[in-house]
Amino acid sequence: MTDRTTDPTAAETGSRAPSRRALIGWGGAGLALGAAAAGGAVAMARTGEDVDPAGAATGGAVGFHGAHQAGIATDVQDRLHFAAFDVKTDDRAEFVRLLKDWTAAARRMTAGLEVGEGAHGGLAEAPPDDTGEALGLKPSRLTLTIGFGPSLFEKFGLEDRRPVALSELPQFPGDNLDRSRTGGDLCVQACADDPQVAVHAIRNLARIGFGKVAIRWSQLGFGKTSSTTPDAQTPRNLFGFKDGTRNIAGTETARLKKFVWVGDGDGPDWMTGGSYLVARRIRMNIETWDRTSLQEQEDVFGRDKGEGAPVGRAKEHDAPFLKAMKPDSHVRLAHPDANDGITILRRGYSFTDGTDGLGRLDAGLFFLAYQRDIRKGFIPLQRRLAASDALNEYIQHVGSAVFAIPPGVRDKDDWWGRTLLTEEA
Amino acid sequence: MTDRTTDPTAAETGSRAPSRRALIGWGGAGLALGAAAAGGAVAMARTGEDVDPAGAATGGAVGFHGAHQAGIATDVQDRLHFAAFDVKTDDRAEFVRLLKDWTAAARRMTAGLEVGEGAHGGLAEAPPDDTGEALGLKPSRLTLTIGFGPSLFEKFGLEDRRPVALSELPQFPGDNLDRSRTGGDLCVQACADDPQVAVHAIRNLARIGFGKVAIRWSQLGFGKTSSTTPDAQTPRNLFGFKDGTRNIAGTETARLKKFVWVGDGDGPDWMTGGSYLVARRIRMNIETWDRTSLQEQEDVFGRDKGEGAPVGRAKEHDAPFLKAMKPDSHVRLAHPDANDGITILRRGYSFTDGTDGLGRLDAGLFFLAYQRDIRKGFIPLQRRLAASDALNEYIQHVGSAVFAIPPGVRDKDDWWGRTLLTEEA
Repeated sequence: MTDRTTDPTAAETGSRAPSRRALIGWGGAGLALGAAAAGGAVAMARTGEDVDPAGAATGGAVGFHGAHQAGIATDVQDRLHFAAFDVKTDDRAEFVRLLKDWTAAARRMTAGLEVGEGAHGGLAEAPPDDTGEALGLKPSRLTLTIGFGPSLFEKFGLEDRRPVALSELPQFPGDNLDRSRTGGDLCVQACADDPQVAVHAIRNLARIGFGKVAIRWSQLGFGKTSSTTPDAQTPRNLFGFKDGTRNIAGTETARLKKFVWVGDGDGPDWMTGGSYLVARRIRMNIETWDRTSLQEQEDVFGRDKGEGAPVGRAKEHDAPFLKAMKPDSHVRLAHPDANDGITILRRGYSFTDGTDGLGRLDAGLFFLAYQRDIRKGFIPLQRRLAASDALNEYIQHVGSAVFAIPPGVRDKDDWWGRTLLTEEA
Repeated sequence: MTDRTTDPTAAETGSRAPSRRALIGWGGAGLALGAAAAGGAVAMARTGEDVDPAGAATGGAVGFHGAHQAGIATDVQDRLHFAAFDVKTDDRAEFVRLLKDWTAAARRMTAGLEVGEGAHGGLAEAPPDDTGEALGLKPSRLTLTIGFGPSLFEKFGLEDRRPVALSELPQFPGDNLDRSRTGGDLCVQACADDPQVAVHAIRNLARIGFGKVAIRWSQLGFGKTSSTTPDAQTPRNLFGFKDGTRNIAGTETARLKKFVWVGDGDGPDWMTGGSYLVARRIRMNIETWDRTSLQEQEDVFGRDKGEGAPVGRAKEHDAPFLKAMKPDSHVRLAHPDANDGITILRRGYSFTDGTDGLGRLDAGLFFLAYQRDIRKGFIPLQRRLAASDALNEYIQHVGSAVFAIPPGVRDKDDWWGRTLLTEEA
């Protein structure tokens, strides 16, 4: 443990939302912006199983260090930039160096600082260490969350360390997956309240990884569609419905432990404190939906549209009476009570990526689900939904990936993936 | 003039950021949400040549009525959804009905209300009048700005009313235009501080226009890159530089009159109070740029990266000494002093539309320039830049369109395009 994670004063300092400034001297510019600060310690908010509440309230920094990675139980930020990477190197030592460099950059960026001096530092002919478009912006609650795809384990001869809970998904009925939006050796989920901050983070990681990794696909998202904060208003998806009413809140330690975090005995040991992510790009047939009657729309979801209340109830958060809903309604099929209690933590974002070749909006939901075991989370849930959900007439799953989300970075000497790449299981 | 636009109290009421609520009874839902309010007047902020300052401060509503359309001199909002449409009908009366329906919907949506009862109102079997995903959101300073492309004039036999100032653009050196992101009979620019509000607006206009118009292309943008507010911090583009430092502010009435608004004697009469828009999708070769030295980057722009000061100056807003810059630097070439005073009003937005097939970010600047005459604004400026700008090594223009922006909607009985479609020139 560092002095920072044991010193609550330091943690509070970190959450006072320092403005994102050039704390490194710009290479050839002769500027001394914040040069004094560059030598100082990086003030950083502390995190652990819980979100940094001060950070959430002020739009400040979310702590980077802890037992779990931030960006899972953290209050959902407004914007997303998600990137899946292919690993281009087969040199394990080089890959480890990259993960260390990435960790250092992520530690700085989530604290609202620029990427630090790298190999080029101070040389006039070298590119600047940071691309600069986030200078002057606040930390904006940026979180960066890394994951390892099944193909990564093959690439580095780590098959024996691959968790069985990191299950590939079966082909579900109705899947229409685009290869160019599917899979990936690595992923990084960047969430922030400012899209420029999220884009900046992914871009600088891609830049640091140049030659070693390449972006396979990426997705920008907006307008959080699930809330991990129980009292906040539930945002609406692009079908106009409140979605994610019953999601797991970041403060529900017991449910997080039961459904999200890999526990001590779950194995493999290197994953303890981690989780598993299923990412699905779900295209919504917006134009078809918009020509459907309100009654049909409400039957499909099993909620009323205005208030978000389950069928026959008055308020959004009233407990649903599943039998009052049509058998194929989305809420009825997806509800834990109808699925042996299966619960996943959802962090979905809406997307609108322009227009397809037919003049229709390329829009929908980028669905991110965190769970303790994919075999007991997304797969059984989606089997049921894919078979019967009335919503299937209006949606199509067009991209898909699964990732093992390793535990959090403990302190300033730790790095993303250390437990996988250096300890024996 | 309506009572609303002459009553400052009403204007202030409108800018108190009413929550976006269901003010229409939901079709078959049996809900009476806001039914009483539905019959009442639509509170609306007043606008004219000036931005509604209260709306800007509170995130409230920007007035819809005025001599000019809102969304041009209005303080730049954080998010953009821009759509170009093809007109599918050749029936002029049907097209006029559409413009009236659009105007009514735009009037309500910019005031933070749902789209009103249309042809389907109240029928259980009919689609709801509004798609609903913006319920509960604030007006978020939504502005909707319509424009007419050159092809529209041909479509309805209006060639003789086409302004000569609505000039098609020549092929500039380096242009690499994608046909599927170029042109359009109509455009609507939706700007708002919340992306869901902007997306909602375009989508509902597209829905109202179903069968009569179809989206040809659309663009989502974020992180305003120009500011029309002189004192606010200038945002950075995706190259990490401050851009738009010397832009025209919404309060500079004299410069707006000189460079942006079509004047009384300019002709044609139906355009008086309007403007002309050039939209360009400028792809940035982010990865190449990011491997360029800081010195080179600063030479290319003619500014320092950290502060944004012109070469040889200390502060961003210091007057540039053009001769101190390299002859091909962007600021030197684009500056009004080097262009016989040519000035355009810029409302650019950054975009990141995932990744191209080569693992590079499909990112850049969606450039929107408003001017009094395209022949005296964008064309001479871009001729100069396309020929010599050092930035050309790092950018490529991949989409392009021009539109005549008619004057503002005067009052509640007026509608978008009336001066073009009903009065003789």
